[in-house]
Amino acid sequence: MRFTVTGCAGFIGSNLADRLLQKGHAVTGYDNFSTGQHEFLDEAFKSPRFQFIEGDMVDAKRLNDAVKKADFVIHLAANADVRYGAERPSKDLEQNTFATFNVLEAMRQNGVHRIAFSSTGSIYGEPEIFPTPEDCPFPIQTSLYGASKLAGEGLISAYCEAFGMQSYIFRFVSILGERYTHGHVFDFYKKLAANPNEIEVLGNGKQRKSYLYVQDCIDAILTAIDHPQAQAKINIFNLGSDEYCTVDESLGWICQRLGLNPIRHYTGGERGWVGDSPFIFLDCNRIRSLGWRPRLTIRQSVECTLDYLMKNKRLFDRR
Amino acid sequence: MRFTVTGCAGFIGSNLADRLLQKGHAVTGYDNFSTGQHEFLDEAFKSPRFQFIEGDMVDAKRLNDAVKKADFVIHLAANADVRYGAERPSKDLEQNTFATFNVLEAMRQNGVHRIAFSSTGSIYGEPEIFPTPEDCPFPIQTSLYGASKLAGEGLISAYCEAFGMQSYIFRFVSILGERYTHGHVFDFYKKLAANPNEIEVLGNGKQRKSYLYVQDCIDAILTAIDHPQAQAKINIFNLGSDEYCTVDESLGWICQRLGLNPIRHYTGGERGWVGDSPFIFLDCNRIRSLGWRPRLTIRQSVECTLDYLMKNKRLFDRR
Repeated sequence: MRFTVTGCAGFIGSNLADRLLQKGHAVTGYDNFSTGQHEFLDEAFKSPRFQFIEGDMVDAKRLNDAVKKADFVIHLAANADVRYGAERPSKDLEQNTFATFNVLEAMRQNGVHRIAFSSTGSIYGEPEIFPTPEDCPFPIQTSLYGASKLAGEGLISAYCEAFGMQSYIFRFVSILGERYTHGHVFDFYKKLAANPNEIEVLGNGKQRKSYLYVQDCIDAILTAIDHPQAQAKINIFNLGSDEYCTVDESLGWICQRLGLNPIRHYTGGERGWVGDSPFIFLDCNRIRSLGWRPRLTIRQSVECTLDYLMKNKRLFDRR
Repeated sequence: MRFTVTGCAGFIGSNLADRLLQKGHAVTGYDNFSTGQHEFLDEAFKSPRFQFIEGDMVDAKRLNDAVKKADFVIHLAANADVRYGAERPSKDLEQNTFATFNVLEAMRQNGVHRIAFSSTGSIYGEPEIFPTPEDCPFPIQTSLYGASKLAGEGLISAYCEAFGMQSYIFRFVSILGERYTHGHVFDFYKKLAANPNEIEVLGNGKQRKSYLYVQDCIDAILTAIDHPQAQAKINIFNLGSDEYCTVDESLGWICQRLGLNPIRHYTGGERGWVGDSPFIFLDCNRIRSLGWRPRLTIRQSVECTLDYLMKNKRLFDRR
């Protein structure tokens, strides 16, 4: 099969491209390198089945070139930084909602009819049911990031209905692992590198979060899109682990790995930032029923992410 | 209070403006006359408290002028024609989602923090619970119109969280009454005027739909925004009647009123068009708990709409 992967130079996209190529598929990558990294594609470029087109998600014409030969589009390109929505409200709308529309239009115009989409557990806002299932009560959005992904999901579903497409919508928890370039492990490690004796923690440290290792995430995506029991018009899956940890616990694992014991300064409050959900924990029975299981625990994921960052300190110079 | 009403020259907007002016409020109307009608504003223009700005929802600068003095924005402007989404996919995105973003940005930039929004029962897609409550299981979108309104709801909620705004989101069934200019009563009457002996019915005629009279709709909006029990950050209300009818029944009432008995030709299928929901029936206990009740039955609403259209045949020349 020929896959087009948007956001192909990013954390998840580049790992996914490598895996698809390993499995013998052809991959067309699309990225604007706004957060993606050239060297994340080094492995992919070794394959003759890899093709890359540099372009932005708002460039409909270029995107069209990237999509036109695909059997399947995996749309990962996004503004993935949930924290800064309130500072730049148009960014989520443009890079997430409008970008998804452009992908769908490129697919429609070229008769491409299968798509997988990286949505987010943040679209549950602040749910009342934990672990939160896919069909929980109609949620209320609490972040611009979540709202923009919700809009993307809605567009994809409506296109499936109107134009005979088939979709796989994955609502991710935060993903960890090799090539990770932003998020709490990144921030904590960066702060501790600058000052090993003290650290600022956003919120009260008691926020409960769930994480998933990137290779487990990719396993789940590939399990679902090939599975005979997941061939509905619209297939929606939570993707996460069956556990959660607090920010404090995660910081503890990081400090232990680094051999540090900094004084923690909390900014206070239940939420780390506006729109931060104090508790994210997804019910993943639906994807588990297809035979998928995560291989790494959250702690193992945090530790391997930290190990990766320690070996790749250059990533800190780029932000 | 000074209200800004987007879509002010439209069916619901112009009726709402008249009511607000009657109640002593000041109103700034905003409309591009794409479907709105100049004469719908004749009554409003008699009031010195009415101001009108002509402009499109994508014109952020002009919209800013319309919003800047408001205490409360009632955002009704939209592409309200659910049927044609698949023919012009970008229209819903632009006129509904992007337009809502522009309203929110104009509000944020001018420190306006209260908004009411006309959403739709179509965002429930094809629900499994009837009557459908506001907190039904997370729905899957079946129309571009519904998806675009869902995106609008998400944006509004996220803005409330991020910028301290307060919102009233109303999920309407189809609205009927004076100044109605599109929908099934319009279409049936137009077809019967051209040929009183035969009529084409989209679908199998058994689609079950709920309707609400425009003045009842306006009563509900004004009840909610003033109500001490509806002062949460985000207030979501279904707006409909506690009954539904089939397309066949509604056509029967229309034919009876016109003294006709045409042969009915059904295009067939459960749905009138792609994305049409075969059954819309909303649980309106939440708005009823504030003391609101609709005054007209669906049959009375259909009949008064027909009477209005018979007296205003010029509306048919404009489409």
